[in-house]
Amino acid sequence: MTQPLRLGIAGLGTVGTGVIKIVRQKANLLAARTGRPIEISAVSARNRDKDRGVPISGYAWEDDPVALATRDDVDVFVELMGGSDGPAKAATEAAIAAGKDVVTANKAMLAVHGQALAEAAEKAGHVIRFEAAVAGGIPVVKALTEGLAGNEITRVMGVMNGTCNYILTRMEDAGLPYEKVFAEADALGYLEADPNLDVGGIDAGHKLSLLAAIAFGTQVDFDAVELEGIQKLSIDDIRTAASLGYRIKLLGVAQMTGRGLEQRMSPCLVPADSPIGQLQGGTNMVVLEGDSVGQIVMRGAGAGEGPTASAVMSDIIEIARGTRLTTFGQPAAGLEKARPARATAPAPYYLRMILNDRPGAMAKIATVLGEAGISIDRMRQTRHDSASAPVVIVTHKTSRDALDAALAAFGGTGVVLGEPVAIRIERV
Amino acid sequence: MTQPLRLGIAGLGTVGTGVIKIVRQKANLLAARTGRPIEISAVSARNRDKDRGVPISGYAWEDDPVALATRDDVDVFVELMGGSDGPAKAATEAAIAAGKDVVTANKAMLAVHGQALAEAAEKAGHVIRFEAAVAGGIPVVKALTEGLAGNEITRVMGVMNGTCNYILTRMEDAGLPYEKVFAEADALGYLEADPNLDVGGIDAGHKLSLLAAIAFGTQVDFDAVELEGIQKLSIDDIRTAASLGYRIKLLGVAQMTGRGLEQRMSPCLVPADSPIGQLQGGTNMVVLEGDSVGQIVMRGAGAGEGPTASAVMSDIIEIARGTRLTTFGQPAAGLEKARPARATAPAPYYLRMILNDRPGAMAKIATVLGEAGISIDRMRQTRHDSASAPVVIVTHKTSRDALDAALAAFGGTGVVLGEPVAIRIERV
Repeated sequence: MTQPLRLGIAGLGTVGTGVIKIVRQKANLLAARTGRPIEISAVSARNRDKDRGVPISGYAWEDDPVALATRDDVDVFVELMGGSDGPAKAATEAAIAAGKDVVTANKAMLAVHGQALAEAAEKAGHVIRFEAAVAGGIPVVKALTEGLAGNEITRVMGVMNGTCNYILTRMEDAGLPYEKVFAEADALGYLEADPNLDVGGIDAGHKLSLLAAIAFGTQVDFDAVELEGIQKLSIDDIRTAASLGYRIKLLGVAQMTGRGLEQRMSPCLVPADSPIGQLQGGTNMVVLEGDSVGQIVMRGAGAGEGPTASAVMSDIIEIARGTRLTTFGQPAAGLEKARPARATAPAPYYLRMILNDRPGAMAKIATVLGEAGISIDRMRQTRHDSASAPVVIVTHKTSRDALDAALAAFGGTGVVLGEPVAIRIERV
Repeated sequence: MTQPLRLGIAGLGTVGTGVIKIVRQKANLLAARTGRPIEISAVSARNRDKDRGVPISGYAWEDDPVALATRDDVDVFVELMGGSDGPAKAATEAAIAAGKDVVTANKAMLAVHGQALAEAAEKAGHVIRFEAAVAGGIPVVKALTEGLAGNEITRVMGVMNGTCNYILTRMEDAGLPYEKVFAEADALGYLEADPNLDVGGIDAGHKLSLLAAIAFGTQVDFDAVELEGIQKLSIDDIRTAASLGYRIKLLGVAQMTGRGLEQRMSPCLVPADSPIGQLQGGTNMVVLEGDSVGQIVMRGAGAGEGPTASAVMSDIIEIARGTRLTTFGQPAAGLEKARPARATAPAPYYLRMILNDRPGAMAKIATVLGEAGISIDRMRQTRHDSASAPVVIVTHKTSRDALDAALAAFGGTGVVLGEPVAIRIERV
């Protein structure tokens, strides 16, 4: 196998540029590690003339990624355009139909169309690899698909959106409100074109659904992910959580339960001194739990040119070495859709609300909780000058149903002002 | 590829038993993930009649592992006996000669004979996989060989001997001296038959040399690892380090420098609040640094039935899926021996010594350090009742040569009682 592996790269943003740099600068290392040269035949992007700091004039140019994906001199179509539909999907489908392998960093496309694309690719005898789609440079797709393949996976967790983690870390460190830090992140170019993909938890939810498919041998089912973003988190919650020994993280959890597959991506309180609690800025962390291996924790950069290009390269190298894996770790045609289970596993909760400060207010709240079967671990009312009293309650383990019942009943007490905040406390 | 993959397992201790359990209990999962059944044809061990909690009467028995390794009904020889030479090596060589693939957990054998075995296997078109040989359940061989294969690796670090980490953690937590905790670990069965393999740093050094070979594309060279065990560490050092904000860990570091390949396994001070500093008990941690990916940290159980069997299974699954990788990530025949470099990269050091408590003693020490070009970051003499004064010094960055010169010169001052302790402080 000494003939070169020929790439067609669509999308020359940060990651695409990073991949070109590695292929150019590390030709000898890559050939030594794969036993064959890795070459770029052609590239495609929206703007041909942009200066990317790396010469592309030696590669054939295609305006149309579909044309690129189907070129005779391309063995592997490297899709780095992004977007769940549109050109990325059209070109990927065309590549598969034309008999190419596909390497992609596109979590949105795979979360929505992964099952159909995998079936098409596997039927045609071709592979789709997507290490760069989840947690940037952390080789977690490989760890889960291969390293832990002898395990029944019991749980997958992760902080997988660096932008959200940056915003939450910065809010705490600088004591700034969400809106202010969001504007900063925007100015720094940290946000997706549609910021809701980041702060709404969608991007991280895409990643979680891909890991869940591999972990539990089920069809990727992004629609079943319970999503909650970080937009409603206040600096008060972050400060209060800190004073209780917690940090708030946008945490993804996927686990197979007796009731079905639970997938959720939502803000959670985690112990401030836990590995996830200590995660700063754009760093990602993924926790994999298997029945034999116990807990494996992986940490690394979740985004950026180098880390993401590193992950893309690992897929290209895998194909160059002749390794042929199914997309999700077993034949896609045999995967079934899991019954989605609402995340009802009992957990302690953090509650924050403003009470109308009059005699008996606290008793009414305590009564509602007691009637819902929720017992209180810690409760504190902070000093206040106005007629409204901020109250924080940490409950013992309770079901989400009981909690929802209590939240609904608070309204009837006449003493709760505004909407109470309820955040799950996760054991990590 | 639907014919079964047939295993011959030599060595039925904890790990071998764990592998048999997984193959028996997860037949369907394994078949789904590999596309073919995984079966055990034959087993071999020292004692046929021992109750292992798992039935082995359905498998052919061989007293001689060489006979097992060469059976016609064995596709993969699974070597779980251990030991760098003797039956493990003989059977592995026989397996390769007989056209089998090899999966092994044997770090000692590969650290000493890995280059020759890899060349023989690759010449014959067969593979040797060894995920379980390094850091137990952590899929670090895969991460380094495949996940980070697009990187020039700049540094590999790790705490990879759970027994040593248990001893050090326990000394600090219980305030017990080394000898006492060593005896405890022995009673708990945590130590190798030759305990020096653990506490002398040899086992961890074996693992480091294997990672270094993959990382830097050089022949595995265990003899070049600078080894220092934990036997001389005193509870005083552990306490003093803690009071300065550090913990002592048996830390392996491999990096390619301008002077050659540096490989060392030795006790180091690391910040107590760093991920490595926080590592408790038998847990392992490996840090991989690459020019594109930055830093990847992996944590998990470094030993035990489940985690180690999980790693063995990942190699078996890899072979069942048809993946064919070279032993060390590139063809063994092309690997060259690296020039070994003494670990002379400057670092701060922790020094502890007992001074004869008389006027001018401290001045003499400070003069020696100054003349060696070593500047002092922190220095403290603790209260004492006798005529001997315990002194602790934290230096600024200095070379090992300068430090050795100072250590040698202390003897001539006439004020240093006994042997000073010097431990490197590592940035992690």
